[in-house]
Amino acid sequence: MTLSDALIIINKEIQSIEYPKNPAGLYSPIAYLLTLKGKKIRPALTLLACNLFCNEVKEAIPTALAWEIFHNFTLMHDDVMDKADLRRGQATVHKKWNENTAILSGDTMLILSYKYLAKSPSRCLEILLDLFSDTAAKICEGQQFDMEYEKRTMISEKEYIEMIRLKTAVMMGACLKSGAIVGGANESDQQNLYDFGIRLGIAFQIKDDWLDVYGDSNTFGKKTGGDILCNKKTFLLVTALETATGKDKEALLYWLNNNIQSDEKIEAVRQLYDKLSVKEKTQKALQNYHQQSINALQKVSADPAGKKILADIAGGLVEREF
Amino acid sequence: MTLSDALIIINKEIQSIEYPKNPAGLYSPIAYLLTLKGKKIRPALTLLACNLFCNEVKEAIPTALAWEIFHNFTLMHDDVMDKADLRRGQATVHKKWNENTAILSGDTMLILSYKYLAKSPSRCLEILLDLFSDTAAKICEGQQFDMEYEKRTMISEKEYIEMIRLKTAVMMGACLKSGAIVGGANESDQQNLYDFGIRLGIAFQIKDDWLDVYGDSNTFGKKTGGDILCNKKTFLLVTALETATGKDKEALLYWLNNNIQSDEKIEAVRQLYDKLSVKEKTQKALQNYHQQSINALQKVSADPAGKKILADIAGGLVEREF
Repeated sequence: MTLSDALIIINKEIQSIEYPKNPAGLYSPIAYLLTLKGKKIRPALTLLACNLFCNEVKEAIPTALAWEIFHNFTLMHDDVMDKADLRRGQATVHKKWNENTAILSGDTMLILSYKYLAKSPSRCLEILLDLFSDTAAKICEGQQFDMEYEKRTMISEKEYIEMIRLKTAVMMGACLKSGAIVGGANESDQQNLYDFGIRLGIAFQIKDDWLDVYGDSNTFGKKTGGDILCNKKTFLLVTALETATGKDKEALLYWLNNNIQSDEKIEAVRQLYDKLSVKEKTQKALQNYHQQSINALQKVSADPAGKKILADIAGGLVEREF
Repeated sequence: MTLSDALIIINKEIQSIEYPKNPAGLYSPIAYLLTLKGKKIRPALTLLACNLFCNEVKEAIPTALAWEIFHNFTLMHDDVMDKADLRRGQATVHKKWNENTAILSGDTMLILSYKYLAKSPSRCLEILLDLFSDTAAKICEGQQFDMEYEKRTMISEKEYIEMIRLKTAVMMGACLKSGAIVGGANESDQQNLYDFGIRLGIAFQIKDDWLDVYGDSNTFGKKTGGDILCNKKTFLLVTALETATGKDKEALLYWLNNNIQSDEKIEAVRQLYDKLSVKEKTQKALQNYHQQSINALQKVSADPAGKKILADIAGGLVEREF
């Protein structure tokens, strides 16, 4: 099974979800967000991980959908908390409807994700439930740290990596591990795939941070520099804060501590990044986590052709321009 | 097992929940809301229903806790949506902390409720999961209808009853049914207990509506008339709107359509209720649903002494003054 085979299955399944007709105000926002164009990489990882150990990936479809619905629930609520106007180039749910709708439809999506999870094979339901709930709680913890870090100036690289591990990476790890569980993998292979996902998830987020500063705004699909404007804690900012001394640090703190919303700020912070070699340091970290992810993947006892598909996905995510 | 036996177990279990130390900003609001003084009637219903069919109620404790945590999750989010300042006489979570905290800690509570549910006996985990998720989705639907009805003037009694069935009653039914399932009841007894809970839940909500108008503010613990001030759709208002004609209807609509926040409005609407015999009609409906609940309970094949405990709880809820 290739990535595009997996995506065809996932997209077809998502398109064919039947929602209750009433109340439409509760279910329409769910259908809206789930059918916006997105990468759908997480449920694909579940199917592909399952396929490493078993030809019958059909059994992993409910688990895969549970992750995709859960992921979109987090987007719906995070967008409320972050006051974001756009998601995948379209209006966020709380902008198109209102905040209460985004809260309540989000809650319903979280419940819906468990409904799908409950359709996983009985033989591994209990272990999947534990993995799913533990992962879900970690993702909330990551979002909490992210919000708390907004109010602090100094965040260490260690704190930052732990935050994105919780907020982004554990889900990729768990998507892969759950697919491996359904596919009948042994515990060691489950763990290796989990580790692959964690490292990949960290690299994925660092790349996300990188694209906001160095991406091509045409390919990226949105204006670059948004993270700089809102002082978002990114790998780049954290690295700059840890590296800068003297006048550079003063300048960086000036831009961070004054509420300036202008292209001038983006340009000034970019120049500081250049001076502090932030681009190179970020590229190095990215390559490091990418390499670690591949190392973990290599330890998995499965068909090399199947592992190559996962390795290619990892490469694609790290090299992506959007 | 008596109601107070059940409550002792529930309170002890809730007090001894161990939350992760970090991030405290995520978990403290959960502990705060769960330990505010509340009725804890829902998890008690689960234990008592289990006890009708089996002496070993210990097995039903995780399921009971799942319901209580889920119920408190709905309170945390509903309070955000309803912009409520007080809950059980104390500051609501979004007032004590902020809205983002109430959203994210609420999400974490919903996940936590599934963590407890997953500790239910394996032999009935799948059926409990389906019941739990279906009930949870219905409760969200009920909240959605409640919010939509705020924007409409005319709501029929039928629409109102269906809304409170979803928002309040299905959970009482499901608490009882899940206890019966863990206790090993047959399907007919599960259904009879579910029906008992549905009727009781509707009576419970009608009594809630009644207390806001006719309760003694000292015993009730809060100022009466709050529902009248904010035009909340209650059984009383819906009955008044369905009964009133001519000048009475005009007067009622005047108070509803003008944004007046005064004791004068409470007094005027109360007088209209008196004129339209709303008090008597509400009492009649309350007694009717109470009687239906008892009829369903009587059909359950279990020890009459155990059933009397549940009947007494129903009586207590319907007769309550707070």
